[in-house]
Amino acid sequence: AVGGGEVWLPLIQPKELWEQTGRWQIYGKELLRIKDRKNADFCFAPTAEEVVTDLVKKDVRSYRQLPIFLYQFASKFRDEIRPRFGVMRAREFYMKDGYSFHANDEDLSLAYTRIFEAYNKIFKRCGLKFRPVEAEAGAIGGNYSHEFMVLAETGEEEIVSCVCGYAANLERAECVLPAGSPIELALPLAEFPTPGAYTVEAVAQLIGAPKEKFIKTMFYDTDVGPVIALLRGDSILNEPKLVRSLGVKSVEKMAEERYCQLAGCAVGFAGPVGLKDRAFAFDPKVRVVADYLVQGIVNGVSGANRKDAHVKNINLGRDYQPDGFFDLRQALRGDICPRCSAVGKNEVLAFSRGIEVGHTFKLGTKYSAAMGAVFLDESGQSVPFVMGCYGIGVSRVVAAAIEQNNDANGIVWTKELAPFKVIILPVNYDEPNTRQWADRIYNELQAQNISVILDDRLERAGAKFKDADLLGIPIRVTLSEKSLAQGTVEFKLRSQPDPEILPKDQIIPRLRQEFF
Amino acid sequence: AVGGGEVWLPLIQPKELWEQTGRWQIYGKELLRIKDRKNADFCFAPTAEEVVTDLVKKDVRSYRQLPIFLYQFASKFRDEIRPRFGVMRAREFYMKDGYSFHANDEDLSLAYTRIFEAYNKIFKRCGLKFRPVEAEAGAIGGNYSHEFMVLAETGEEEIVSCVCGYAANLERAECVLPAGSPIELALPLAEFPTPGAYTVEAVAQLIGAPKEKFIKTMFYDTDVGPVIALLRGDSILNEPKLVRSLGVKSVEKMAEERYCQLAGCAVGFAGPVGLKDRAFAFDPKVRVVADYLVQGIVNGVSGANRKDAHVKNINLGRDYQPDGFFDLRQALRGDICPRCSAVGKNEVLAFSRGIEVGHTFKLGTKYSAAMGAVFLDESGQSVPFVMGCYGIGVSRVVAAAIEQNNDANGIVWTKELAPFKVIILPVNYDEPNTRQWADRIYNELQAQNISVILDDRLERAGAKFKDADLLGIPIRVTLSEKSLAQGTVEFKLRSQPDPEILPKDQIIPRLRQEFF
Repeated sequence: AVGGGEVWLPLIQPKELWEQTGRWQIYGKELLRIKDRKNADFCFAPTAEEVVTDLVKKDVRSYRQLPIFLYQFASKFRDEIRPRFGVMRAREFYMKDGYSFHANDEDLSLAYTRIFEAYNKIFKRCGLKFRPVEAEAGAIGGNYSHEFMVLAETGEEEIVSCVCGYAANLERAECVLPAGSPIELALPLAEFPTPGAYTVEAVAQLIGAPKEKFIKTMFYDTDVGPVIALLRGDSILNEPKLVRSLGVKSVEKMAEERYCQLAGCAVGFAGPVGLKDRAFAFDPKVRVVADYLVQGIVNGVSGANRKDAHVKNINLGRDYQPDGFFDLRQALRGDICPRCSAVGKNEVLAFSRGIEVGHTFKLGTKYSAAMGAVFLDESGQSVPFVMGCYGIGVSRVVAAAIEQNNDANGIVWTKELAPFKVIILPVNYDEPNTRQWADRIYNELQAQNISVILDDRLERAGAKFKDADLLGIPIRVTLSEKSLAQGTVEFKLRSQPDPEILPKDQIIPRLRQEFF
Repeated sequence: AVGGGEVWLPLIQPKELWEQTGRWQIYGKELLRIKDRKNADFCFAPTAEEVVTDLVKKDVRSYRQLPIFLYQFASKFRDEIRPRFGVMRAREFYMKDGYSFHANDEDLSLAYTRIFEAYNKIFKRCGLKFRPVEAEAGAIGGNYSHEFMVLAETGEEEIVSCVCGYAANLERAECVLPAGSPIELALPLAEFPTPGAYTVEAVAQLIGAPKEKFIKTMFYDTDVGPVIALLRGDSILNEPKLVRSLGVKSVEKMAEERYCQLAGCAVGFAGPVGLKDRAFAFDPKVRVVADYLVQGIVNGVSGANRKDAHVKNINLGRDYQPDGFFDLRQALRGDICPRCSAVGKNEVLAFSRGIEVGHTFKLGTKYSAAMGAVFLDESGQSVPFVMGCYGIGVSRVVAAAIEQNNDANGIVWTKELAPFKVIILPVNYDEPNTRQWADRIYNELQAQNISVILDDRLERAGAKFKDADLLGIPIRVTLSEKSLAQGTVEFKLRSQPDPEILPKDQIIPRLRQEFF
């Protein structure tokens, strides 16, 4: 309804397309790689940007043919290290993925907003309690994206939100400097022995200093050379932020051997004092960057770049000078909202957990430029398509809906998601009158295109009631010889504790009323 | 409607399951094999017998839970040597596959008949001219199967049929002995030189004898030893028939080196005279089998088991004796119907071509026995499930339907298969009155759940008409400023040459009439 055309894209995709965008390398081990009988390389699609861009590239020549929005429902495969929680995080899963192609950023923004709104409607109709949050684009790319999070304590993702409306996942959440810094006199630099103590925790305990006094020194390799990141002792480095701050394609934790070469000491004993000169001598492309919070550390503690030794009273400017300060850390409890902070308020961020069921991205020209997918614009110039992409984790929606809608007896489906809307439960299907009414109601609902299942098994009634509850079919119609003799049938909503007893002629009108 | 429950089975399936049935080896290079990040072996499912049997094995314990019929719509992959004709024979394709589990053969037969009838109904509703034929079960297995063939001159499969109703694909078609044999006196055996002539054609030309006089000598390896098959010079060996006649699992053409060892001569010069003794000395497991037609060869010609020499006047009994006679050859033009022949009639088989769009199989216990998938029968015995399986090549149905339903202007969809049932074609969508009527009809059809597409492009009318015909949408409604001013719209069926001109208020009732 937002203007998409349904397609089927290949699941098995040739390496050549993935090499054009560099993702054959970047995607790493999550990409399931395959060789066919001719020893040619393929992958099982975890996502389909390359293939759909190739398709549009071949068919679309002019801005007059734009915008185009193509989507599919298809299986995907991501070779996760830790598949778990059933279909919640299975390697193979079912996904709706859509891709839009535009003549310019403005048109992409219009479509993005329309599709974003459609996603909100879809998840609402699914009966989910959810929240769209600002997100990191990850292996898909682009720099503007939202995740749709189903709120659940068991969710794998942490999200932050504020009363002002700001919401982001932990990877993306911006961190701002707390207002004001402690005032403290700079003391003279002093080395002290820390035999065997190579973690912040161990040294902090040894000298009785808080973790906030420490400067963590972390080593990464990037596609443009090594980088050393300084963080406050209680911070966790956020790799996507590091990637963005440095403007590099990817970062990878440095191997131990290389770390030791650059720092000149064992792992855990590196520190900022004198480190830049030593590392520069080793590789002149090295950069040292620091998280904003490091600016506030007076008389800090860090490694001495010698095994079993640390240094205290480290001060910025006097003892070390990073090449730049950036937002490099993950948000922590107690952090204030970046939006509210910008207007002078100090709202503290709320932390909660969620299950990602949808993700929308403004991709820009990342794929089209890399693949030479161009069209002629109004002025006759050949320019790359501006793209967006949009995914819904269909199989995960099912798992998330169960997570939010269940009770001690099983699933409680909403009508939109239920595999069958009505279950007809004859207490004894072998009894002629019961069977006649069961069949009659079944056929009537089928004729009206209302999805219905009839439990015609020769099981005990108790087992059938248990199964109906477990399956969570929204409406149960129970028929027994006894109640039919009294002229009644039982109508029960799975979500309500008590049934209604209806005259048997009223059951069809009552069911119809539920659906129209 | 025939009692199936829809499921999703995994596309990526573990080697372990495929090894239980031996198909990991048997399936050969068509099976797309994959290693995951842990170096474990998987395949992309070409079919799902192993996985569904494993599923049912884990959940079903008693005959009281039977029968069970599970089906899915899913992508499949078969690494064909020669993918071609677009989606007609693509390596990746979309298939409906169903699997049924029964307590005994009688119940399987009941279900098989019901599903066979459902398939007939489905292909009929798709508007296809088709024919179910007896078929070879191939890599799926079992010994009773039918293919549903869409009749088309361009079809890849050859089928034979008879006025009596008998129909089979070429692989399966039974061959019977022509009534009577020529009467001819046996002449003495004589060797003659045939330098460089190692084919039936070459030697036949050299000595001016018909191919029907020749005995072809073919060498195969099987899982129980080597086999030599004798065929009449004009026959083509049918490998599935050889497999069935020998009661082996598989046959493979013998490598040249091994052929030369057994026959004691270069390839092309082997013949039945003295061959059995020589081959027996080499491998006592060797068997010699002959096609029925070989029985009728008097004074035959074959290789002399020496390079550049053949022998003529070979006669059965006197000069060679196979271990058995079987139906080993493909049917040829002129063959008579095996059913009619059985009742003494001599109807000649008709040959035609088809596209396989469906295939049903009685599998018996092939998979369940191999995988230990058992249940407790009424007498409390643990016995393997009796199985059937049933496939429809969904994407190929589309291609086959186009093959049968097209004209010079493009596709002519039937209403059941059309991607949209109605196309609304405003000659100029920018014209307010045209747009208003186009939108009105579009919204009205949408509200009635009739699938409709509106050509709202700013293309020339000519291009839009051409595209509508090319796409083959069954009903076209054309709107122009001029005709609307006269109070009319145009209604046209894609399958008919001429449009109807209707008063504009009549268009909705006319469309409704097409659908109810």
